[in-house]
This record gives sequence, structure tokens and C-alpha cells, in this order.
Amino acid sequence: MSKLIKLDYLDFKNSLERLYNSVNIELGLKVIQVEDAVSEVLAEDIAAKFDIPPSNVAFYDGYALRSKDIIAASKEKPVKLKVIGTFFPNGNPKCSLKKNESAYVSSGTPLPKGADVVVRFESVKIDGEHIWVTEPSESWDRVIFHGEDAKKGEVMFKEGHMIRPQDIGLLLQLGNSRVRVFRKPRIGVLSIGDEIVEQFNNNRSSYPDNFHMLIKSFFEAYKFHVDQVGIILDDVDKIKEAIRDSCQHYDALLVISGASTGKKDVVHIALQEVGKMIFHGVKLSPGKVSGLALVDGKPVFMIPGHVGSLYVCLSLYVAPVLFKTLCNVKEPFVKVIAKLDSEIRSRPHMSAIRTVQLTRNNGGYVAKVVEKRLGGSGLFTLLTKANGFVVLPPGAVRKQGENVTVSLFNPFEVFHTNRLESKPN
Amino acid sequence: MSKLIKLDYLDFKNSLERLYNSVNIELGLKVIQVEDAVSEVLAEDIAAKFDIPPSNVAFYDGYALRSKDIIAASKEKPVKLKVIGTFFPNGNPKCSLKKNESAYVSSGTPLPKGADVVVRFESVKIDGEHIWVTEPSESWDRVIFHGEDAKKGEVMFKEGHMIRPQDIGLLLQLGNSRVRVFRKPRIGVLSIGDEIVEQFNNNRSSYPDNFHMLIKSFFEAYKFHVDQVGIILDDVDKIKEAIRDSCQHYDALLVISGASTGKKDVVHIALQEVGKMIFHGVKLSPGKVSGLALVDGKPVFMIPGHVGSLYVCLSLYVAPVLFKTLCNVKEPFVKVIAKLDSEIRSRPHMSAIRTVQLTRNNGGYVAKVVEKRLGGSGLFTLLTKANGFVVLPPGAVRKQGENVTVSLFNPFEVFHTNRLESKPN
Repeated sequence: MSKLIKLDYLDFKNSLERLYNSVNIELGLKVIQVEDAVSEVLAEDIAAKFDIPPSNVAFYDGYALRSKDIIAASKEKPVKLKVIGTFFPNGNPKCSLKKNESAYVSSGTPLPKGADVVVRFESVKIDGEHIWVTEPSESWDRVIFHGEDAKKGEVMFKEGHMIRPQDIGLLLQLGNSRVRVFRKPRIGVLSIGDEIVEQFNNNRSSYPDNFHMLIKSFFEAYKFHVDQVGIILDDVDKIKEAIRDSCQHYDALLVISGASTGKKDVVHIALQEVGKMIFHGVKLSPGKVSGLALVDGKPVFMIPGHVGSLYVCLSLYVAPVLFKTLCNVKEPFVKVIAKLDSEIRSRPHMSAIRTVQLTRNNGGYVAKVVEKRLGGSGLFTLLTKANGFVVLPPGAVRKQGENVTVSLFNPFEVFHTNRLESKPN
Repeated sequence: MSKLIKLDYLDFKNSLERLYNSVNIELGLKVIQVEDAVSEVLAEDIAAKFDIPPSNVAFYDGYALRSKDIIAASKEKPVKLKVIGTFFPNGNPKCSLKKNESAYVSSGTPLPKGADVVVRFESVKIDGEHIWVTEPSESWDRVIFHGEDAKKGEVMFKEGHMIRPQDIGLLLQLGNSRVRVFRKPRIGVLSIGDEIVEQFNNNRSSYPDNFHMLIKSFFEAYKFHVDQVGIILDDVDKIKEAIRDSCQHYDALLVISGASTGKKDVVHIALQEVGKMIFHGVKLSPGKVSGLALVDGKPVFMIPGHVGSLYVCLSLYVAPVLFKTLCNVKEPFVKVIAKLDSEIRSRPHMSAIRTVQLTRNNGGYVAKVVEKRLGGSGLFTLLTKANGFVVLPPGAVRKQGENVTVSLFNPFEVFHTNRLESKPN
């Protein structure tokens, strides 16, 4: 049992400044197969090694021809052209078109020499070895140009680019089967407290150690690696040892609970002895006892043990600084504008986070404020009934009907906000 | 080489009606561990098996007391209370508070009998075995009520709910270690065409079979299972056999290419012979030759071989009907409002899809229209330079500066739209 700690509460804005100024993680590189690369972040520029397409190619199935031959074509005076061959993408037409000649080409086929336009086969009349064309075409209509998609040497993706599904297609088309990416952060989770147990048991007052699974789930879609390192009793020496040890193996350490200022909250003391305190205590509700220290250069986050405060810490400190490191993004959440269904406010010197449930309305969103009273951040349902959160600066009032910016909790919220009314079939 | 096909082009709206009226997939159920459940969809209602919390508990670390004892407390006339014990969450206080008694409780600790409020320890003065309280508190301040988060029997999650990270915490707190979920769709991909090759080679006119990897990546974040079934030559009998065979093993089959109306496009003929055509040909650009048939009750999608059209088909037909089946969501994309940087329009009887690049501006978004000309849907960069798409009904004009609804391609777009200007450090 130790002395009570007095915290200096920082403005939320200042705590963010200290966060970004102090955390500096070296992630290192790895090489992966392109087909496994979704959500990975490029550690190299990707330039085209050749032109795509490699020559002028037909965009549609049809007839390649010379636009000047059909310049006077009309329904009344159709132009007759000889068809001198049929070509497909894997056969390169070696022929050259002469006056009033054409060639059948399927989509993606290189144009024969002399051709400058493709006419869709539906718009011509086939007549044995000939076709009749009934209207003129602009030069280069229905043709994809040599190098139109990519020019040799052109940088198609820059270092720091997070790879999306559509990028996989182009990367493979560019001839890349492997790419160099940044290693994803490895996060260690330490749970602190005499009351924490491994498993849920019949003593409903015990606290099963579920938070590491929530944290693992939080980062799963982004392929961050999260390990539960252990459950440590409220003992300064044991906590110091666990922190020092974990900092050898992880890019960031999350210490859950024990960060408050109660009789058994000794994480602050442990961190002061093994590292450098960056901040502890923020004018932020929930999340007031959040903190950050550096131990052997690694960020160690003090995360409050209430689920609402924990989620705020993950969303406003841990995820932003890790994504900033990985791909220069401080706001890893989709933001939407929504109309408030009721007034919300923050206290004079306190930033506040309020959770809201979103529903679609006339193409926009309505934000229903999830009811909260003092003590709310201990409730799971404050999160499970919501789809996102609003950040209020100190002393703010947002009136009913006012538009606010809502950050969606995660990529899966859309499956809730866009749900149809009826039951699934 | 077969006869050319004439398509009846349907309105986009009608094609969607036919899609939802004809596709009926039975996914079946499976049981999984809760910690693996993110993005899975519940196949059962989850009701609380007990109350959470199981009794009135302290929200903050502090002193549990009787509010009526401190009703007259003030700075001038503080009230002195005896501290009769110290309690933590894993110890149930058996004591009962009498007049002018209090007990130290840490956050989460059940209140001693008689207590109806918790006063934060920072706001009292400690004096040996006593505390001095300097202000009154409302009854039940800083207390989480018995059953406030969940009441025994209350349905916390309904069947059809897609599980998010924050839900994992509550599911575990509710004592669920496993949940029953719907099996995710299994998708087979068949690539059609004499020109398709397994691997990229030096013949740049050959088409490596990359699209199945793009499709696999597209569904990866949602844990859908995607298999490449094979590359089939442009031969009706071979295509029929491959389709019939694949329909035994997959919930949905995607047949890439061969759906156009050129000389070698025989997928339509094959599908007419082995199944029932639902539609083929849509007044939609790109995506005009999209189609759907049912074979042994399974949906078989005809997907155009141009990457832009393929992406439209995945986004507007395949993903919506699969998510509708799974969790009653037809619009599986986040939608944001953005201001157009230039005019876009669709042709009189044709719906159109235009891709846009989003940038943040004053809390909102600006949509830069990715340049497109006829032939654009063959370009990968139309997708890789964009973050989402706008759907235009037939004959629509959206002027420069007008607000439009943009559907983000996928959950990773936020790492592009929210990117900071400077290089990552």
C-alpha cells in the first residue's frame, strides 16, 4: 500500500503534442508476396518497369480500321471494308492495314499497323469477308493508348502507401510478385491488479482479463500483432520487472489499469523508476488518468481500467501514434457528418468524448447520443450501442439539430449504420 | 467460334431487383471462439445470463458513505466520518455502514450495505481513521447500478449482428466464450479466355490471371473465402463442365471475362445450357455486360474482364447480395458527402459510375473526378488513383461544386484520405 499520487492534469491538446514529440518507433522492413499485401504499407516507391499497355490496344471487341477511310460513312452511304484477319490478345497482329481494310480484334488486342480506331462489331453489318460501316469515328476512339495506364519509370505507388484491394491488381500487372513493406507494430498488453483473474468465474466481482482480447480485436483488421504479456499484481517491483522485460520484445506496451490515483495504483511509481514520464493525467473525460512514459525508448501507455476510458485511449492515443509511424495518418477513422438528436456539452476545462449511434436519414446521418451519466465509462453498452464518437473541446455546447463530426469506431460500423429494417432472410 | 450474342440491356435498377429476387443462399452455421469473432455475424440472440454489474459498485476510487450524513457539509462546516474498512473489487464488503461511517472502496468494488454514494478520495481530507467531507453529494453519484450495463435475460446482441471489437469485451463479460455465427460465403472464381496465362511472362500481350487475387483481397477484411477454381479456354463444353462442377463447392461463382458479345464470348451460351439466365446486359457504364444466372440454385455472376467493370460488378452486385444474405446490409460501403471539383454526367438511358479521389477540406471532403475517357474502364489507375465512386442515374448532371454521395471502396481508404502532407518519418 503506497502513498497517493497527485497528478498534473494536462490539456488534451498538449498531451497529443507530447505524444507526437516523444514517440519514435523504428518498425523495420520485410518482404511479402503481393497477394498477402492488403493493409500493408509500402517501404519503397513502386515504379512501372514497362509501359501498360505495351502498345495501342482495342478497348472493345470490334474492327480495327483507319478513321480516314470512314470519314464520309453514313446510313445512306455506308462504307465497305475488307476484313483481312481476326486477332486476339495473345496473338500480335503483324499485318498492316491498307486503304479500306480492317481486322477483327477482341478487347485488349494490339492494333494492326495503320489502324487508329476500333468500331464495335454491333455497329457494323457483316457481309462475308467484308463489313459495312454506317458512321464515322473520331481517331483513337475505343483504343487504349500505349502507356496510358503506366509509363515505364513512372512512380505508381509511393513509400508509405497502405495497399488496398484495387492496388493488388495494378501491382501484379506491373510485374511485382513481392513488395517491401514496413513491419506492423507489435503491441504487448500487461494487465495490472490483484483483482484480475485469467478466466471468468462465479465470483462476479472478480475481473476476468478480457481487455487484451478487445485490444487484439481492435487492431486485427490492420494486421497489428497484439500479445497478452501477463497479469501482474499491484506490486511496484513486479510491475517494474514486467515493464522492463516487455519493452525488449514490443514496439509499444499497454499497461491496463493501475494508472489511477487510488491506494493500489502504483504503475506511475513503477514507470518513474524505470523510465521517463511524458504525461500522466489529461483534462479529458473519459480518459482522465491516461498516461505515457518512455522505457528504453519504447512508448508505455497507461490505460485506465474502465472499458470506456480504455477505448478512448486506444482511439485517441495508441492507434493514432502507431498509424502516424506506419503511414503518416493521425486520424485512422472514417469521419462522417451527422445531425445531433440531443444537446451535448463538455465541462469548462475538460475535453469530452461522447459516443453516438448513427442512423441513415435522407442520405445523411442522425447521431443519437448514447445516454451517459457520471460513471458511464465503466459501462460496456456505452460502446456496444454506439457506432462512433464525437470529440468536444473544453466548454463546448453542441445543440440538438446541430451537425457534428463523428469518427466511426472501426471499419465494421457500416454493417450497423446501413442495416436494413427487416430481419435477415 | 460461335454466333454473336444480342443482349437485352436492362435498367440498372431492374437488374438489382432481379438480383435480390433470385439469389437465395443458405450459409449454415458454425461455432467459434469469441476472441476470433470480429467481423463474424451472430446466428443467435445473445441474452445476459446474469446482471452486470452484479450489485451497486463504486465507479471511482474513493469513500462509500451515506449521502444523508453529508447533506449539510460545506468548506466552513466539514463533516467528519469514520473509515471502518478498505475494500477492493475481489473482496465483498460484508459490513454495513452506520451513521457517520464510511469505507474506502476502489473502482468496481461492491458498496457496503447502507452506502448510496461514493466521494472521490481527492475531494476529502484524510485524518487518521477519519475523513472530512466538505460538500454534499447527490444520492447514487459515482455509483454504477446493479444491472446498469446488462440485466439478466436482456438481449444484448441480436441475430444478424456483425461483431465489432468493442462487442468482444461485452460478450466475454457476459460469460460467452463461444458464439454461434453464420458461415461466411465461399466464392469460386473461374477465369475464361485463351489469352489468360497463369503467370506474367515477357509477352506483354498475354493476360496473367491476377483478378482472382484482387477479388480475394477485396473480401479479405470480411473473412470471405475466395478460391481460384481455374482458367478455362473459350470453349462452351469446357466452360459448362467447370461451372457445373464449381457450383457443387461454392456459395457463389464469379466467371471472369467471356461475358461480352464478341466472337469468343461463349459464357452466355454455356450458362443458358446449364442454368437459368436472370439477366445479362445492363444499362450501366462501366459494367454493361454484367450478368447473373442460377445454376443448381447457386448464383453465377458474369463479370466483365476490364478491371474497372469488374470492380463495379463486385461493388454493386456481388458484395451487396452476399452482405444482404449475411447480415441484411445492401450497402456495405461507408458513404461520405463530398463537393465535386468538376462536372460529371451520365448518358440519357445509362447509369454511370465515376471514380473520385477524396481530400479533406474544412472537416468535409472534396471529390476530384479521376479523369476518364471512353476506354477508361480498362485502366487500373482509374481505381488506384481513386478512393471511392459516385453512382449517377441515367441522364444525370452533377455540377462542379455540387455535393455528391461517395461510397468509399473499402475500409482502408481512410489511410489515404486522411494522410498528412509531409513524408512519414
